[in-house]
Amino acid sequence: MAKVITPRHVDYAQWYNDLVIHSGLADYSAVRGCMIIKPLGYALWENMRAVLDRMFKETGHVNAYFPLFIPKSFLSREAQHVEGFAKECAVVTHHRLKLAEDGSGVVVDPDAKLEEELIVRPTSETIIWHTYRDWIQSYRDLPLLINQWANVVRWEMRTRPFLRTAEFLWQEGHTAHATREEAIAEAERMLDIYARFAEEYMAMPVVRGIKTPSERFAGAEETYCIEALMQDGKALQAGTSHFLGQNFAKAFDVTFLDRNNQRQYVWATSWGVSTRLIGALVMTHSDDDGLVLPPRLAPIQVVFVTIPTVEEPQMSVAREIAEKLQTAGVRVHVDTDDTKRAGFKFAEYELRGIPIRIAIGRRDVEQGTVEVARRDTKEKVTIRRETIVEHVQALLEEIQHNLLQRARRFVRENTHVVDSFDDFQRIIEERGGFILAHWDGTAETEARIKELTKATIRCIPLDSPAEAGRCVLTGKPSHRRVLFACAY
Amino acid sequence: MAKVITPRHVDYAQWYNDLVIHSGLADYSAVRGCMIIKPLGYALWENMRAVLDRMFKETGHVNAYFPLFIPKSFLSREAQHVEGFAKECAVVTHHRLKLAEDGSGVVVDPDAKLEEELIVRPTSETIIWHTYRDWIQSYRDLPLLINQWANVVRWEMRTRPFLRTAEFLWQEGHTAHATREEAIAEAERMLDIYARFAEEYMAMPVVRGIKTPSERFAGAEETYCIEALMQDGKALQAGTSHFLGQNFAKAFDVTFLDRNNQRQYVWATSWGVSTRLIGALVMTHSDDDGLVLPPRLAPIQVVFVTIPTVEEPQMSVAREIAEKLQTAGVRVHVDTDDTKRAGFKFAEYELRGIPIRIAIGRRDVEQGTVEVARRDTKEKVTIRRETIVEHVQALLEEIQHNLLQRARRFVRENTHVVDSFDDFQRIIEERGGFILAHWDGTAETEARIKELTKATIRCIPLDSPAEAGRCVLTGKPSHRRVLFACAY
Repeated sequence: MAKVITPRHVDYAQWYNDLVIHSGLADYSAVRGCMIIKPLGYALWENMRAVLDRMFKETGHVNAYFPLFIPKSFLSREAQHVEGFAKECAVVTHHRLKLAEDGSGVVVDPDAKLEEELIVRPTSETIIWHTYRDWIQSYRDLPLLINQWANVVRWEMRTRPFLRTAEFLWQEGHTAHATREEAIAEAERMLDIYARFAEEYMAMPVVRGIKTPSERFAGAEETYCIEALMQDGKALQAGTSHFLGQNFAKAFDVTFLDRNNQRQYVWATSWGVSTRLIGALVMTHSDDDGLVLPPRLAPIQVVFVTIPTVEEPQMSVAREIAEKLQTAGVRVHVDTDDTKRAGFKFAEYELRGIPIRIAIGRRDVEQGTVEVARRDTKEKVTIRRETIVEHVQALLEEIQHNLLQRARRFVRENTHVVDSFDDFQRIIEERGGFILAHWDGTAETEARIKELTKATIRCIPLDSPAEAGRCVLTGKPSHRRVLFACAY
Repeated sequence: MAKVITPRHVDYAQWYNDLVIHSGLADYSAVRGCMIIKPLGYALWENMRAVLDRMFKETGHVNAYFPLFIPKSFLSREAQHVEGFAKECAVVTHHRLKLAEDGSGVVVDPDAKLEEELIVRPTSETIIWHTYRDWIQSYRDLPLLINQWANVVRWEMRTRPFLRTAEFLWQEGHTAHATREEAIAEAERMLDIYARFAEEYMAMPVVRGIKTPSERFAGAEETYCIEALMQDGKALQAGTSHFLGQNFAKAFDVTFLDRNNQRQYVWATSWGVSTRLIGALVMTHSDDDGLVLPPRLAPIQVVFVTIPTVEEPQMSVAREIAEKLQTAGVRVHVDTDDTKRAGFKFAEYELRGIPIRIAIGRRDVEQGTVEVARRDTKEKVTIRRETIVEHVQALLEEIQHNLLQRARRFVRENTHVVDSFDDFQRIIEERGGFILAHWDGTAETEARIKELTKATIRCIPLDSPAEAGRCVLTGKPSHRRVLFACAY
């Protein structure tokens, strides 16, 4: 059964949905807004998680696990936080079902009502800072550098696989520090790790910046972010790192005795990335034929297809080469399915985004060659069997590099320096992309631009130089350009 | 601050709680019945998970992720399953909070009531088999070998860290097969993996067996289990693997076309182990001084303490050896904290169960020696620095082996072959342990023995030989002995 993917130029949103479902990344579920992460999607997440986890541990962080449930009253403790997170969430009110008297199934047992409702965590600052109160007494207990891999729930009204789902998987770092400077340095360090991960592993260029006050995390003093640009010209926030000041320490009364025996409130950060990154990865590299996965994260890097499948000489050559590659650390798969034709398999593996396909036919066996096809450019070459390991290793690096360069070029070509609001509107309407423009620094102007164009300030880029100018909407003075885009 | 652990002979239950809390494995939380898994406990879980995950993948399983929530009606689809799991569970009834009108915080928004309540998964058979209906059409789609690492919630009334908590972490395998025989073989294969993991990695001997009908998983045709014996003579169910027959396939209408083009219901298994294993590990090996961790799972295998800490010659020797060990694949930690005395540190690392402690003092530096102390026997030896890598590697294996042998001896000495009910009652009361006795095979006798002694049939051991005898309670004929014990 051929799986039809809507081409991007016809309907980008539909292309994305088709691709996610047909490639086997995810599936819809019986629960509103919740997706099923299928084996391919989960293997991709495992690879991403492994790299990030190593990066976190190398920078001194340890993992822990806090409860799924948060007492309702905790959410009210930090005033901005409750505004941001209490709105749409899953509320547990009872702890028992019982058989319906009419025999029609089960009903909620009214006698099992909880005294205080529990919220399924939308994020864990409150429960964690409630705990840190017991864990932190002295400067000797600091810094506390803890990360959690977990599922969280936010009752989103409009959901799309990976990009916005009611439940998603993520990591959330929650650190505690003795000084403001140290906490800010931590928030910046983690942003840097996210940016490196995005570029070095996902081959996805990102802009590092800080959010405007109206886009900040609820409860943060400063939100750092990385923003990526998707193929349809919309931006995607790929990770955030928050300097929380002493807000949560004050809300949960977390203090420590400093070296001078003075009691101080603790300084905090939190930072997270989620399975949303899978959506970002898909939309950065993939094409109308299917996924394109960067080799460093691809669950399978090389697939072998023998033609015809059942013939032993081809299969034994495939097995022999596969074993050599595996020994060299390459993730390989040998297709042994004799119920499908090679052409069907080629399309299937392209759909699934496997970086390199090696085909071995009768003539290849005779001539000591194999055919190597790369997913990113669709180029094929026939090479000598003896050189395969070096060739594949080099090609994997080359594909990884090419994907990043290609994506960088796309961002460059779709980043517009704009000085008039007419141009701003026209570009947003016609092409999308990143717009670097001056802004007068007020929330009113920010809101008005959003109203008029749907574009928001994605961030104030960390590397944007000081530059005198005039706000693209109001003409008031500005000192640097900020990054606008329509966003996922 | 010295952490006082209640000795085992004074109060075993209190010893366990003290140990879990003071060693840093876990902490209590603000949410009833939910614990916090602290960094040491979580690192242990990560190591266990990594080994199990590898064993699952080596046997052809892949990971996926299904929703946290299960529609209430799904639970009623399999009649026995709802009996077992609908009772105590967390029920989500609303999806929004709003600010209280009196300004006192947030309240549940009555306008945001869900049409159908959602249950936080206590186990995922229902939602997964609902999904498998779409995924399975033909014999070519089988077997489907999927595992999920997830959190689950069961609203337990009496909880203890790791052993019984409202929320816990686990893995749940859910497989689908074309034939009864293949499904049974799968259930047995996974039991075998659990048993090997328990013995080879946890150094915890287990009895493999099948559950009696009254102890079966709700919805299973056969429940296989591994049972371990704790130091207080109580048994602990450490893992279960279920042959589910066609029960869930029928409940969720999952069929496939077989090779003869006939429509058949699919055969199923499910199997799981959880963070409960950490409790089992603690109670199998630890002593009054703290945890004793088997080297293969210990997050840190070797800790270096220099005396005094601040002196450079000792520290540089420690660093040099540590690096060599690390290169050899040993997980090491060099203590650089100069605010605590060596004696305090020794006690702390014993409490935390680190298998090997290496102390380096001034004389050691002069003489080219180090002092190596093993946690399991408390023996210390002084060895030449040049031989350290081989010594440590051999000693880690020796400790792993010793723990298993010691635990095996304990099980042997506490397994009683009993033929009279007087002996049965006396042994359960005075010593506990495993009791091998004849049973007439009826649920009534099983229930009556439980009533009289609190002991339950832990399993019918797979390796128990056919043996004619008479039921220890009723005197009716029996063909093999079963395993009784009081259990966690």
